[in-house]
Amino acid sequence: MTGGPTNAGWDVRRRAKFERVRAGSANADGKVIRPAELKDALHAVIRPGDRVALEGDNQKQADFLSRTLADCDPARLHDLHMLISSVSRPEHLDLFERGIATTLDLAYAGPQSVRIAQMVEDGSVRIGAIHTYVELYARMFTDLAPDVVLLCATRADRDGNLYTGPNTEDTPTIAEAAAFHDGIVIVQADEVVDRVEDLPRVDIPGDWVDFVVAADRPFALEPLFTRDPRQIGEVEILKAMIAIRGVYERHRVVSLNHGVGFDTAAIELLLPTYAESLGLKGVIARHWILNPHPTLIPAIESGWVASIHSFGGEAGMERYTAARPDVFFTGRDGSLRSNRVLAQLAGQYAIDMFIGSSLQIDRDANSSTVTDGRLSGFGGAPNMGHDPRGRRHASAAWLQLAHGTGADRRGRKLVVQMAQTFRSAGVPTFVETLDAVEVGQQAGMPLPPVMIYGDDVSHVVTEEGVAYLYKAHSLADRRAALAAIAGVTPVGRKADTARTESLRRDGLVAFPEDLGVETRLATRSLLAARSIDDLVAWSGGLYDPPAKFRDW
Amino acid sequence: MTGGPTNAGWDVRRRAKFERVRAGSANADGKVIRPAELKDALHAVIRPGDRVALEGDNQKQADFLSRTLADCDPARLHDLHMLISSVSRPEHLDLFERGIATTLDLAYAGPQSVRIAQMVEDGSVRIGAIHTYVELYARMFTDLAPDVVLLCATRADRDGNLYTGPNTEDTPTIAEAAAFHDGIVIVQADEVVDRVEDLPRVDIPGDWVDFVVAADRPFALEPLFTRDPRQIGEVEILKAMIAIRGVYERHRVVSLNHGVGFDTAAIELLLPTYAESLGLKGVIARHWILNPHPTLIPAIESGWVASIHSFGGEAGMERYTAARPDVFFTGRDGSLRSNRVLAQLAGQYAIDMFIGSSLQIDRDANSSTVTDGRLSGFGGAPNMGHDPRGRRHASAAWLQLAHGTGADRRGRKLVVQMAQTFRSAGVPTFVETLDAVEVGQQAGMPLPPVMIYGDDVSHVVTEEGVAYLYKAHSLADRRAALAAIAGVTPVGRKADTARTESLRRDGLVAFPEDLGVETRLATRSLLAARSIDDLVAWSGGLYDPPAKFRDW
Repeated sequence: MTGGPTNAGWDVRRRAKFERVRAGSANADGKVIRPAELKDALHAVIRPGDRVALEGDNQKQADFLSRTLADCDPARLHDLHMLISSVSRPEHLDLFERGIATTLDLAYAGPQSVRIAQMVEDGSVRIGAIHTYVELYARMFTDLAPDVVLLCATRADRDGNLYTGPNTEDTPTIAEAAAFHDGIVIVQADEVVDRVEDLPRVDIPGDWVDFVVAADRPFALEPLFTRDPRQIGEVEILKAMIAIRGVYERHRVVSLNHGVGFDTAAIELLLPTYAESLGLKGVIARHWILNPHPTLIPAIESGWVASIHSFGGEAGMERYTAARPDVFFTGRDGSLRSNRVLAQLAGQYAIDMFIGSSLQIDRDANSSTVTDGRLSGFGGAPNMGHDPRGRRHASAAWLQLAHGTGADRRGRKLVVQMAQTFRSAGVPTFVETLDAVEVGQQAGMPLPPVMIYGDDVSHVVTEEGVAYLYKAHSLADRRAALAAIAGVTPVGRKADTARTESLRRDGLVAFPEDLGVETRLATRSLLAARSIDDLVAWSGGLYDPPAKFRDW
Repeated sequence: MTGGPTNAGWDVRRRAKFERVRAGSANADGKVIRPAELKDALHAVIRPGDRVALEGDNQKQADFLSRTLADCDPARLHDLHMLISSVSRPEHLDLFERGIATTLDLAYAGPQSVRIAQMVEDGSVRIGAIHTYVELYARMFTDLAPDVVLLCATRADRDGNLYTGPNTEDTPTIAEAAAFHDGIVIVQADEVVDRVEDLPRVDIPGDWVDFVVAADRPFALEPLFTRDPRQIGEVEILKAMIAIRGVYERHRVVSLNHGVGFDTAAIELLLPTYAESLGLKGVIARHWILNPHPTLIPAIESGWVASIHSFGGEAGMERYTAARPDVFFTGRDGSLRSNRVLAQLAGQYAIDMFIGSSLQIDRDANSSTVTDGRLSGFGGAPNMGHDPRGRRHASAAWLQLAHGTGADRRGRKLVVQMAQTFRSAGVPTFVETLDAVEVGQQAGMPLPPVMIYGDDVSHVVTEEGVAYLYKAHSLADRRAALAAIAGVTPVGRKADTARTESLRRDGLVAFPEDLGVETRLATRSLLAARSIDDLVAWSGGLYDPPAKFRDW
């Protein structure tokens, strides 16, 4: 028998790491990089062609590191392959314009989506792929193991122990991908303290961390999950009433995720009023997977909510979540602990329902938030907005949607899309063909960037009613049920009155009157809170809204 | 506006935790429980009716804790609700017979599956649900948050910092569910040392841990992923050749998971011989998600493997994995780091293919490992053995299986089932109806315990050939393609020769001769290693097989 290693060695990564850490140490005291020398340290540690993961989460941004990296010398640092889950800051793209980076793997690019699309077109950025958040992290353990990761914490000690605070988000996951595969872990912290005892708690052991640096200012954080109740109108309230009666009550939905938006915010604000009047408290909506939505405060205060596990935090909700530890997951120090990978796991396998809003839906119920030339990516919705075929335990709601016979019989997750038939300016939501199909072609994507696939959608809710798509036995029935609640959009105009009546009788379509929803009650007086100020009052002063949501 | 908390308080869990920790501290020096007083400590910390997660992983077992818990006084500890992912030790069920526990949520019950089935029948255990591993963990963050978790580590310091060694598995996930929701974390360690500097590395911060106890003997660990090449026969070798040409080569499968079994072990042992002769080295099978299979050593040593991320470890593979850090994920101390949740994430979202063996397959390609009265559970296979509908990035193999048009067009994961047409004693693998259907009914399960659903299966490989089920446009074609490779089983006897020929022409079925597989070459001389001893030699003496696999 012959064989044995054909490689030059088996510890190429480890030896490289050793050399890089040694080089970076010239600009550090122990693990602590001297802030004025951060650029030198990055030049010393990172090598041309490296795969570099930059945090870049949905909410928090390691912006001292990203600003400094973008200011590095392209003669020394070039051809980097960046892994940035949320491309949300200008310097994320400056890296490419300056020639420091060439390839980008990402999950989401909300604020930078127009510029990305332009840069793809002019060839200044090469896209590896567009993922969901957890897909990108999954690849860090497979074919995209990072050489260097640039992360973000609230506080660090000199040994590298990290306190991430309420916005833990993705830091442990990205740190693990590097720390356990001879990658280098560099963390900016709002504050570097001497001893572990000076940390409120330890979210990540110092053992995993190579360098820390005190940031020039607190890391950037956007309040993405705050919706001002003032902007919730009667149509959202009507849709919320329809959803509560037609979906939550009907299927006895106990555990769920709410996407962010005014539709789901309206539902949250109707739980302590409308849903409570229906006797649903304690029966539905007890276990939640979502960021700490301020609009959920009245339901929490009214005793509706048993537990919430969160992907990330929300600016202004720190004191409130800390004061409600029976509901929120919190650490020994009392403050929120979030973790996107675990919240996504729960959101996929442990809950009855995902419900979110969509900007565009085709006749097969495929939906997308891509409605123009933007490359906005996927974020996290597809990981929850599908029927999880690896699930094997049952819940009452899941069994209600069971289908098939014999060995083929299985339950189904409720995947609910909410939409208003028309968006502002008379733009129809329901269309023959998603804009995403053309956007995908133009951007050279191998497949159209569909957010939620129609065959995963069990229900669609509009101000006209509910389409119970999971009950359809044929594609024709599915399309007819969707058309029946699509108003006078191009899709809705194909509805046939007689067929709609037949679908109502068979329970594939329900209008408000079929559900006992009195449309005349759909007024703002049903909202448990009608302003941010009301939310603050509900919270007993514990909620501290960010400045842009204050007007008092 | 009225409202405000209706609860008695918002920190019931935290106050309860404080009291419990105080009570348990009577039997501890700081966080370190005196081993002789462990039973007293459990009596003091755990309360009747508690939800208790006991580790209970696929491989490692916190057996000092489980033996001691089973020896507790049922008058003091009763009605516990146990969360045990792998029910694999007698005392896991003694808990129920002794009246200490009443309800069980689990994922797998291999060695105890017969006894569980009997106990369910006689009413001595009430099953909450049977899950996959990660589903059960997902519920720990939703509706099954544990009050107490009983975990397992290799070494701990007096502050509770933990070194889990190569078998990290599920410890961080279960610890997080308790540590961040005011549950109590108790950890047995093979050794308790004074200072953090005495730990090879820190896998879990002491901040998360309430108590540690030195175990009376090293934790139990089973070598579940070791297959002796001596037991690989010519049929397995033929199937491996067919799979390599008909699936791996044809679809250019770069990233993959292998289920454990002799079929996949044969493939692993044919990579450096048969597959290498086909010029496939560096082209296929580069990135792996799997435990450190000893049968993969020859492929690794021959330079086939770029990376492996693991769910857990494997007994005897500690020195080998530590010596190959470019391939395996290892920590700062040089030893393996595993993590089931992250490996499952990668196995679901980042890889081209899952391939595993099945004991029973029906005509629709549904499969199950349940073939008699056992309640063996699901383990982890369903989480990888399905088409992940939340995936959005493309790979070459995934795109090869793309289907649909317009917005509906999407890629597909290869989900491959391997089977021999007959098991030993002439028992057919391919059957009209899975035994699981009847087992599920008898056990009162809401749905039949199907491991992999047929509509998720893209390929079936037998010694007769490959059925390319993903290419079928109708249910009739799917069934005919499967029948064509099912030999003279009840399913295979329905094959029609003319139709099979038509399916071969259309590429839905391939026989060995269609794939260029010379069946006469299917001999043991193709195996890169023919014995455990050969594997040791390939490893350069780094692999230390457990005693039961040694015969020299």
